[in-house]
Amino acid sequence: MTILSARSRVEPFHAMDVLREANALAGAGHDVLSLAVGQPSHSAPRGVLEAAKAALDNEKLGYTDALGRMETRRAIAAHYADRYGIEVPAGRIAVTTGSSAGFSLAFLAVTDPGGRVAITAPGYPAYRNIIRALSLEPVEIATDPADDHMLTVASLEAAHRERRIDALLIASPANPTGAVTDRHHLAALMDFCRDEGIAFISDEIYHGLRYTGDDRTALSHSDDVIVINSFSKYYCMTGWRIGWMVLPEAMVRPVECLAQSLYISAPDLSQVVAPRAFECTDELERIKDGYRANRELLLERLPAMGISFAAPPDGAFYAWCDVGAHTNDSMDFARRMLSEIHVAAAPGLDFDPVNGSRYMRFSYAGSTDTIARALDRMADWLGN
Amino acid sequence: MTILSARSRVEPFHAMDVLREANALAGAGHDVLSLAVGQPSHSAPRGVLEAAKAALDNEKLGYTDALGRMETRRAIAAHYADRYGIEVPAGRIAVTTGSSAGFSLAFLAVTDPGGRVAITAPGYPAYRNIIRALSLEPVEIATDPADDHMLTVASLEAAHRERRIDALLIASPANPTGAVTDRHHLAALMDFCRDEGIAFISDEIYHGLRYTGDDRTALSHSDDVIVINSFSKYYCMTGWRIGWMVLPEAMVRPVECLAQSLYISAPDLSQVVAPRAFECTDELERIKDGYRANRELLLERLPAMGISFAAPPDGAFYAWCDVGAHTNDSMDFARRMLSEIHVAAAPGLDFDPVNGSRYMRFSYAGSTDTIARALDRMADWLGN
Repeated sequence: MTILSARSRVEPFHAMDVLREANALAGAGHDVLSLAVGQPSHSAPRGVLEAAKAALDNEKLGYTDALGRMETRRAIAAHYADRYGIEVPAGRIAVTTGSSAGFSLAFLAVTDPGGRVAITAPGYPAYRNIIRALSLEPVEIATDPADDHMLTVASLEAAHRERRIDALLIASPANPTGAVTDRHHLAALMDFCRDEGIAFISDEIYHGLRYTGDDRTALSHSDDVIVINSFSKYYCMTGWRIGWMVLPEAMVRPVECLAQSLYISAPDLSQVVAPRAFECTDELERIKDGYRANRELLLERLPAMGISFAAPPDGAFYAWCDVGAHTNDSMDFARRMLSEIHVAAAPGLDFDPVNGSRYMRFSYAGSTDTIARALDRMADWLGN
Repeated sequence: MTILSARSRVEPFHAMDVLREANALAGAGHDVLSLAVGQPSHSAPRGVLEAAKAALDNEKLGYTDALGRMETRRAIAAHYADRYGIEVPAGRIAVTTGSSAGFSLAFLAVTDPGGRVAITAPGYPAYRNIIRALSLEPVEIATDPADDHMLTVASLEAAHRERRIDALLIASPANPTGAVTDRHHLAALMDFCRDEGIAFISDEIYHGLRYTGDDRTALSHSDDVIVINSFSKYYCMTGWRIGWMVLPEAMVRPVECLAQSLYISAPDLSQVVAPRAFECTDELERIKDGYRANRELLLERLPAMGISFAAPPDGAFYAWCDVGAHTNDSMDFARRMLSEIHVAAAPGLDFDPVNGSRYMRFSYAGSTDTIARALDRMADWLGN
């Protein structure tokens, strides 16, 4: 009999079932339109691809220092000066195998077994599963549409008073809501955490994808924060598995030792070429213009179908929508939409196990043509 | 004040200090000869590099299924038929971000917090650190030079009787000893584990690098085993961060769900091209011929310097040597050897915190010229 741990009983993502079914339909020749996946439909920028071909000829690829190649760390540090006007020494940058590795390393660096990590609901479902896998307890704090889905100090404080929280992870812009935590809320949350001895982790993976203002890194307010970021989203490099952390000085060595054992080092070709993405702004901004057009289409047409925006779609490439006018079971709604009109989107339960069944996440990272045709089909379908 | 967990106080690898010092010396213009690193000096085989350039033009790289691209899983399954004459369905293969991810996933799949995982001493130091990071307890069972550093059922049983063991991880060929666990010992250990309800994990990352016989996978004895392997060693693809697991059928879905959250998926370009390495046997065997020549040099010359082999160097590219005739502090020995004659090798304490100070690990993955010149310098040095 195969031995299986209790912690291996991880809740699968419902979105994956939708994706599997969508792939099966597409494989059977149907014209499936997907608003389900959280990744750009574009490849890595051309400059990155060309650099990769050159690196295959010229670079000796192998294990690197656990924190990454020094030239990659320097390029990321320079990005903070260029993009945010902030000085970050390269020595505080850790190059990671995507933001996924960043989350595990951050949790391990600041919590011991049994520790409690606060995240928002709705939120990225992997947070919860990583937290549990590392023998920690996720504390899901509901965000409110009335607060534009920003976490408030009041609700954080209430959860903390009920039972002590050891770390807080905030994403801005957020998945699945697209919501941005404004500078005042961000500062207030960070100050509260500092005063209460709660470690603050800022997931900035959707930086660059903001439609209504400028990104603000948590580093603008304090150096005593773990920032997690990645080349996956704005830079269109999901499959390259390359991201980074900015660490408080005292955390650099512990994270180095943890990363050495858990990951050895991040993929080397990705380390060599990812910095080139910082130089591909024109191409990346054109791609972002596409997301902006997609977002306008959704804002214009979904409400007319009785699908309202439950959060302001200020960033990322997600619309978090209330489908309560049509169903009280968004998983069923997603399945029917897929089987009847071949439009795939992510049901809300993955992101919010408590209230998710009246919500759906529509990703607008695809082409504008895909979005427009999907909206046409949905309008017909919901009109019947 | 920066918040740091107790579990972030991971013991650094002493070998890394040696490497850092070696790099500093090399950077200052000294001719440093390294027998310290556990990776091939060769790049990925030419067929892989060419396939990668083509894939950058032709493949859409992105997230994949958590268990990997199906064609990659099929190629790995076919490798079991070609190489070992064993049928393994592709559905039981998980493509991982190096064997590092394989270890974490294996431990998470079979143990719950507080569980006890047996490993050998000497052994690969990351095992111990990963086990601790995942809230588990490493049980280090000493192997004996008299048993050719194979773990025996008797010593496993003794440890298990003292306090119950939940999982056993065995590497063959092993790091740092190069020792191979023969088929009879392997079968006896697996049978004992089956009878006692201990999960069995077989690290086969050094398969392909055997000098005295044929590799035997644990799958030859039973399907109820987790096998971990990688393209890093024989296939010279360390920096590509690509490996695999073979899982018992009932473990496939749990590992898929864990991997989804912890890693999303393995680097996609590496997934696309790694299977080409299976077709590059001529090139890889020529590289292995170099290791074989290096090994002969070490076998011939080290004993004459009063450095004896503490384990038969049957596989991998490591010689585990007793330097007790020269020192009772191999860390100091390594430092002096580096600073005085610019030859780097790994001190034993990383691999065996109890008895390691009379041992050193010499890696012979470098060029034969490097090994020969290092041996010349050592002979002069130790002759003085």
